[in-house]
Amino acid sequence: MPNRCLIGQPGSRAALDTPALIVDIEAFDRNVAKMAEYARARGVALRPHAKTHKSVACARRQIAAGAIGVCCATLGEAEIMVQAGIAGVHITSPQVTSSKIARLIALNGSAPLGLSVVVDHPDNLAAFDQAAQQEGTRLCVLIDFSAGHGRTGCADADAVLALARAAASAHGLRLCGLQSYSGNLQHIPTRVERSQRAQDQRAILRRIVRQLRESGIVIDVITGAGTGTYDLDGEDKLFTELQVGSYIFMDIDYQRAVLDGCNVPAFETALFVATAVVSTNAPGYVTTDAGLKAFATDGPAPEVATGAPEGSRYQFFGDEHGKLILPDGVEKPPLGTRIECVTPHCDPTVNLYDIYHVVRGDTLIDIWPIDARGKR
Amino acid sequence: MPNRCLIGQPGSRAALDTPALIVDIEAFDRNVAKMAEYARARGVALRPHAKTHKSVACARRQIAAGAIGVCCATLGEAEIMVQAGIAGVHITSPQVTSSKIARLIALNGSAPLGLSVVVDHPDNLAAFDQAAQQEGTRLCVLIDFSAGHGRTGCADADAVLALARAAASAHGLRLCGLQSYSGNLQHIPTRVERSQRAQDQRAILRRIVRQLRESGIVIDVITGAGTGTYDLDGEDKLFTELQVGSYIFMDIDYQRAVLDGCNVPAFETALFVATAVVSTNAPGYVTTDAGLKAFATDGPAPEVATGAPEGSRYQFFGDEHGKLILPDGVEKPPLGTRIECVTPHCDPTVNLYDIYHVVRGDTLIDIWPIDARGKR
Repeated sequence: MPNRCLIGQPGSRAALDTPALIVDIEAFDRNVAKMAEYARARGVALRPHAKTHKSVACARRQIAAGAIGVCCATLGEAEIMVQAGIAGVHITSPQVTSSKIARLIALNGSAPLGLSVVVDHPDNLAAFDQAAQQEGTRLCVLIDFSAGHGRTGCADADAVLALARAAASAHGLRLCGLQSYSGNLQHIPTRVERSQRAQDQRAILRRIVRQLRESGIVIDVITGAGTGTYDLDGEDKLFTELQVGSYIFMDIDYQRAVLDGCNVPAFETALFVATAVVSTNAPGYVTTDAGLKAFATDGPAPEVATGAPEGSRYQFFGDEHGKLILPDGVEKPPLGTRIECVTPHCDPTVNLYDIYHVVRGDTLIDIWPIDARGKR
Repeated sequence: MPNRCLIGQPGSRAALDTPALIVDIEAFDRNVAKMAEYARARGVALRPHAKTHKSVACARRQIAAGAIGVCCATLGEAEIMVQAGIAGVHITSPQVTSSKIARLIALNGSAPLGLSVVVDHPDNLAAFDQAAQQEGTRLCVLIDFSAGHGRTGCADADAVLALARAAASAHGLRLCGLQSYSGNLQHIPTRVERSQRAQDQRAILRRIVRQLRESGIVIDVITGAGTGTYDLDGEDKLFTELQVGSYIFMDIDYQRAVLDGCNVPAFETALFVATAVVSTNAPGYVTTDAGLKAFATDGPAPEVATGAPEGSRYQFFGDEHGKLILPDGVEKPPLGTRIECVTPHCDPTVNLYDIYHVVRGDTLIDIWPIDARGKR
């Protein structure tokens, strides 16, 4: 870890061995506090999504600010969080194969207060029930509703009701609630459309919740919302929990979407990739050391934050290189110049790194492991 | 590592905890042998690129088949290979920052036979020379020529000559050769165009080599070529070494490009991602557990190899999920069904995993660490 020796040295941010993933701790902490304050003021619980950071250190900071636990997208993330003593872990994706169910039940037994997991199919529910009973444990399940996205979850109210009834009567399970995550709404670029579609989705969800309650089915938790809809879905007391993730870092897409219709950004960009200029022989551009293995490539191109001439554009240039295209007539930054970029899509970008370089201003102050990177 | 207990169990390939990266060892070994045989027959050396596999186990198999060492794209890869006792490491990307140069010189000192690295700028050459002299060591450098790609490397013959002269007279350096890698030609889909452009590029390179020799500059090594041009660039005794990488695995793009104009595939697909069906509630498709964090996203979509109905198409469906779109009227594969996909772009896909699941036929026979994953 070549950068460890730089911790505490003033100006060390500009001397990091590259490519390096950087967290601006002041912006990060303000984001964490702001979302916690939003949730507190609305009387809604906050169980942020750890799939974004995959880091025990980040989870602890969120919990210290008031979060009641973390969500995990993979069982491997949940294992890391539980092993680190994080309570209140909820797994947001179905776990259906026999090896995953065995791991899940074992993990549930090792978590002092247990954990929760979604379920969207009667066969999977029966398998959970059987495995939990065999181990003499009880697994807390949330019925997953597809919420207009259709990725996972029950397709309609009838399916939710049938599954909730089955869960409520299963000896190995405890029915804890409902998950309704509209992943397809989070990145809609205009606030007006996002707001309307989130409202439509909440109307559907509200009818399902009413049907459940009219059927005598008790559900305590209704979890959903992301960084794109937190202040829409958090307003009207339908959701009891928010499972927002990206607000801590704010990537290019989210910064654009969340800013739309607002005067000031709701959250600050807190995640950057530092790269260095490694070749300067071509006309009009220089080559950097951060390419397809340093940034997620499913979103827009990275954007230059600092270090490059105004108007420079970043393009991918193979696995290990970036192309920094310079405006006409601008002098090339020399070899070794450090450039920091805003990340295109934060979650899969984080998943490419083993460590966060935590900076305060211009100084590296800590290195945090990305404990659950690559954990499935 | 939930799959370790499956090693040696017949049929274990179909029971792997998913998503899992799989190497078909028989196809892999045939690919390794075939490229080694090609190089041997042409009298050209083989120093395959370890950026593809990032694995000591893979490097050892290549060397056992006749390779003289491995190429590395990052210094971190080279550190892993040298620490594992792999000799003949060549670093194909410029290393320019002071921290990288310090690591490079230290590594050179710890490699019994040293290593080699490219250089494309007089300032970088001077920095190498100074650092090597300070440590009382000598660093083997190859002058990097941009080869029509313009990513790294000297732009023209004059720059190559000037740099070669400077290297030849530097006390801390040893001029070992020339690198000319046309990364921009490798994926050209038609063999006719790829062949013509590789030939044009070799003509330019041949003139540079002649100028160097006429100037009394001795170069032993001329390295270049990739899986897309190996049998073009390997034919006419210009290159002394091939630095091919992807031939061991063969992803979707390379399989298409290399097959063009040939009757049989030159190399076999040996790398797969196994995924499981985790949700089946939507009409016309099912959801799997391999998404943006399980496949490289800079290339085409993954292609189904086995396990899904004929004509199924794979799409990304968020960070952790894939959408398997089924042909009309086809019955959905049930929850837990294993599907294996051919990888879209092998190098950045491998970089998302910590381990290879090595299979022989239907049986998991070993697990190999991807030692240099994420190493920069």
